[in-house]
Amino acid sequence: MRTSQYLLSTLKETPASAEVISHQLMLRAGLVRHLASGLYTWLPTGLRVLKKVENIVREEMQRAGANEIMMSMVQPADLWKESGRWDDYGPELLRLSDRHKRDFVLGPTHEEVITKLVANELSSYKQLPLNVFQIQTKFRDEIRPRFGVMRGREFLMKDAYSFHLDDACLEKTYQIMFDAYCRIFERLELNFRPVIADTGSIGGEKSHEFHVLAESGEDDIAFSDASDFAANIEKAEALAPQGERAIASQALETVELKLERLIKTTDVDIKNTVKTIIVLGDADEEPTKNFVALVLRGDHQLNEIKAENISGVHAPLTLATDEQVSAVANCHSSSLGPKGLSVPVIVDRSAAHLSDFACGANQNGYSLTGVNWERDCADITVADIRNVIEGDPSPCGQGSIVIKRGIEVGHIFQLGDKYAQAMNCAVLNEGGKNQTLTMGCYGIGVSRIVAAAIEQNHDQYGIKWPKAIAPFQVAIVPMNMAKSARVKETAEALYEQLSNAGIEVLFDDRKERPGVMFADHELMGTPLLLVVGERNLDTQEVELKNRITGEKSLLAIDNVMSLFN
Amino acid sequence: MRTSQYLLSTLKETPASAEVISHQLMLRAGLVRHLASGLYTWLPTGLRVLKKVENIVREEMQRAGANEIMMSMVQPADLWKESGRWDDYGPELLRLSDRHKRDFVLGPTHEEVITKLVANELSSYKQLPLNVFQIQTKFRDEIRPRFGVMRGREFLMKDAYSFHLDDACLEKTYQIMFDAYCRIFERLELNFRPVIADTGSIGGEKSHEFHVLAESGEDDIAFSDASDFAANIEKAEALAPQGERAIASQALETVELKLERLIKTTDVDIKNTVKTIIVLGDADEEPTKNFVALVLRGDHQLNEIKAENISGVHAPLTLATDEQVSAVANCHSSSLGPKGLSVPVIVDRSAAHLSDFACGANQNGYSLTGVNWERDCADITVADIRNVIEGDPSPCGQGSIVIKRGIEVGHIFQLGDKYAQAMNCAVLNEGGKNQTLTMGCYGIGVSRIVAAAIEQNHDQYGIKWPKAIAPFQVAIVPMNMAKSARVKETAEALYEQLSNAGIEVLFDDRKERPGVMFADHELMGTPLLLVVGERNLDTQEVELKNRITGEKSLLAIDNVMSLFN
Repeated sequence: MRTSQYLLSTLKETPASAEVISHQLMLRAGLVRHLASGLYTWLPTGLRVLKKVENIVREEMQRAGANEIMMSMVQPADLWKESGRWDDYGPELLRLSDRHKRDFVLGPTHEEVITKLVANELSSYKQLPLNVFQIQTKFRDEIRPRFGVMRGREFLMKDAYSFHLDDACLEKTYQIMFDAYCRIFERLELNFRPVIADTGSIGGEKSHEFHVLAESGEDDIAFSDASDFAANIEKAEALAPQGERAIASQALETVELKLERLIKTTDVDIKNTVKTIIVLGDADEEPTKNFVALVLRGDHQLNEIKAENISGVHAPLTLATDEQVSAVANCHSSSLGPKGLSVPVIVDRSAAHLSDFACGANQNGYSLTGVNWERDCADITVADIRNVIEGDPSPCGQGSIVIKRGIEVGHIFQLGDKYAQAMNCAVLNEGGKNQTLTMGCYGIGVSRIVAAAIEQNHDQYGIKWPKAIAPFQVAIVPMNMAKSARVKETAEALYEQLSNAGIEVLFDDRKERPGVMFADHELMGTPLLLVVGERNLDTQEVELKNRITGEKSLLAIDNVMSLFN
Repeated sequence: MRTSQYLLSTLKETPASAEVISHQLMLRAGLVRHLASGLYTWLPTGLRVLKKVENIVREEMQRAGANEIMMSMVQPADLWKESGRWDDYGPELLRLSDRHKRDFVLGPTHEEVITKLVANELSSYKQLPLNVFQIQTKFRDEIRPRFGVMRGREFLMKDAYSFHLDDACLEKTYQIMFDAYCRIFERLELNFRPVIADTGSIGGEKSHEFHVLAESGEDDIAFSDASDFAANIEKAEALAPQGERAIASQALETVELKLERLIKTTDVDIKNTVKTIIVLGDADEEPTKNFVALVLRGDHQLNEIKAENISGVHAPLTLATDEQVSAVANCHSSSLGPKGLSVPVIVDRSAAHLSDFACGANQNGYSLTGVNWERDCADITVADIRNVIEGDPSPCGQGSIVIKRGIEVGHIFQLGDKYAQAMNCAVLNEGGKNQTLTMGCYGIGVSRIVAAAIEQNHDQYGIKWPKAIAPFQVAIVPMNMAKSARVKETAEALYEQLSNAGIEVLFDDRKERPGVMFADHELMGTPLLLVVGERNLDTQEVELKNRITGEKSLLAIDNVMSLFN
């Protein structure tokens, strides 16, 4: 490709609207352009990268035995009503009506369509297992799209769905897909980790997220410093502290200070206090009893996912209002404590290990010190309801927790029969009886990977693409081509040679100063530059610049092809 | 690919909903499945074909120097308001609102988005010409989607847009794209014709459609039987009859018969009558004068496109209501005639060549005979307003018109500055002045090509794919593999050999009767079958069946690879 025939739209200035480095560099290097909130046009350079990611994903899906199909982006609302998600999905599901006033949605995912298809097409266990995938444009009407294509509204996704007669077969395909995902991210040359994940609103039983590690990641991942263990912080178990709880030694006292002031103004250590949070209980109970108290060590953070999975707690987790708190405990939330509450009290494992601790007194402006479980608060349930923190023992039993940030680029689920049940997806089993299928689903954010790769691979000059997804393998940069026929001839001959050999080469034939050209190629992250200049032509050499290592060297023109063997 | 791991969904029965053969065969061969009106899921076999078409289109676009980009399917309404098409496009443009109540459309085409992008990105004539394309999902909310993917609502399209400083440059790129289109349809091995076309609502000056010839086509194309001339019937000029008009010889007479009865019951030849149609005139004139009469030879058909392009005629062409006809001529439309009308009269060239002809008398139930122009109807305008018919002289000057049916699969336009003007798309020219760009646009219906190829290539047993787009190059069909270890070993070895060589091979490892397998492969149109059976294994041969020619022959197993060289 010659730059003179190429839409090379680099920007010198960083657009003010772009907050994260990948968004800034994708705009500056001319990979994408903003069209409207969460909507982008992929320019040629960006699309080249996107297609490379897409192809690697496709190849590994095919290798995993998945059949490629393509479902429509516009989906009839009826299917979503059948699965129940028409009501459950929320405003991220963009709903629309056609000219005949029939309801449709813009597909954010395709469980409904594929489950219906399989229900119609398959009739016998002999046709199982079936694994299908598509690489297709999705739409999620995010309330605040941001970070460019990292959290856009229209995006390219690979979604796969597998169908099985039983869970053992699902488990087998799940493992095949897990391995395929690892190969994909290895081939993309990204530093990634599969992490144990929560199944969230999509439902199901077992799940892994695949994260590209990057400081700018939105998710916290808990690793063991001594094993392969990695889990989304939502899912990482906080073990109970080791050893016996210390025996109560202090008397219970009431202090006329809010807990917060007590910690700030006295020698009471926050790690020896507990905080209390009132949330809604299970909605079926009577309204007056419909609250639960959650108790955590003062320095720990509530893990909402863990909490809402506890029986008796309303999901999604919902904090009580000030009025409701007042009705439960007759005080403000800042003075809450576990002692004497009339609602069920769930105490985190670490808080339950304290003795002689301080807490709110359920009386505005008062705290208690020397509090002890059993003696002062008897009727409690102990559970894991906090986020792990660095230094916690790893739940795998080896080493301690380290927390890093990651960008979620893939997610695989064992769905079970949630959709198959709702949409009557069954086949005749070996015994001739109708049997509902069990399903897996497997997503990869193809367009998001482009941004994640940049978050992990850049410097102050621009992008440093992994070789597998660089838009071009090499660029030819001639020095003052207009003035030197020799430079022009050499550059043209090199371009022809490389193009004919199928190398993806960008020939910078613009009439620009060398500095401008070098800056553009550094920004765009082309892995190799071949600089053709008068001073090296007597020896029939070009200068080779490596974008990743920064190294420069002289290379005989006859040896250029050896770079690509 | 093994059929046991493949979603091979063939149907024995033809679904009643499918009217045309391509739709029937696409359903029966398991290429697509219906999801909702005009929405389809592409199953693996269909998608393999679609991807092959897509790749050929992509390669030829790249060879033509076009840059691939990807624009979003959801587009902000503002851009459509800026171009004026928000009001003009009609209900095929699906409009929707996001969660913030902002207006968007599902893109049926991308002139607005690309013109805005180029207006923002380009600043100098040095960056021109620019040619960009995408292969992307489009949505048109057809009122009556039909014929499967031939006229669906969501479909895959290649759309390209070129930008130029002047028309000479546009003309050059237009020719390059014209040639690229010819190469594409040649590579697809389709019998096609580029035809001169009307630019229609998209606007612009020059245009060609590319048609795949097939009896089931929706469009009539006029060819010369003696030259390369081909035009959409909407656009083919009907020349004036040769020679002088015969001199008036009969007296004008009134007959108490409707014209229709006169033709049926007397020796008056329909070719010596004229029919008269009242349509709306240009809307700016006074309402009472706002009609025009169109007059054609009794056996000719009105060409609406030609008529509405005539000055004084309202576009789109709109027939007068019975009431309006009555107000103009004081009779029903069946008794209309050109004599004595108070509105402008436009007479088709062939009708204007008649003498002593018959027509309605503008009095219910009466006709006139022996009518002659000038003598009886003086104030007329002669124009070409009819469709050509077979046998007409070709407008190219050579030979006669032949009419064939075609399926439109491509359309290229010289748009001029319609969009560039509306959206302020200009660059600095060599003289440093702002100059509005001129544009071309170039579409190919990628998914429609799959259906068109089937319309052109099938027999009573199923599809006969052109080699270039067959889903598989070859299928291996073993006879009674369960009973013969030798058949199984040979088939497996062949499968491995072909797969490893990169041949797209389908290995039919189902436990089905040979008849079922053969019927499925004939239906799916696999070009070559390798039948592995006991009786040929002693001589180390397989039977080769050619789907296109129907030929069967024996082939030494060692020579199988030679089929693909």
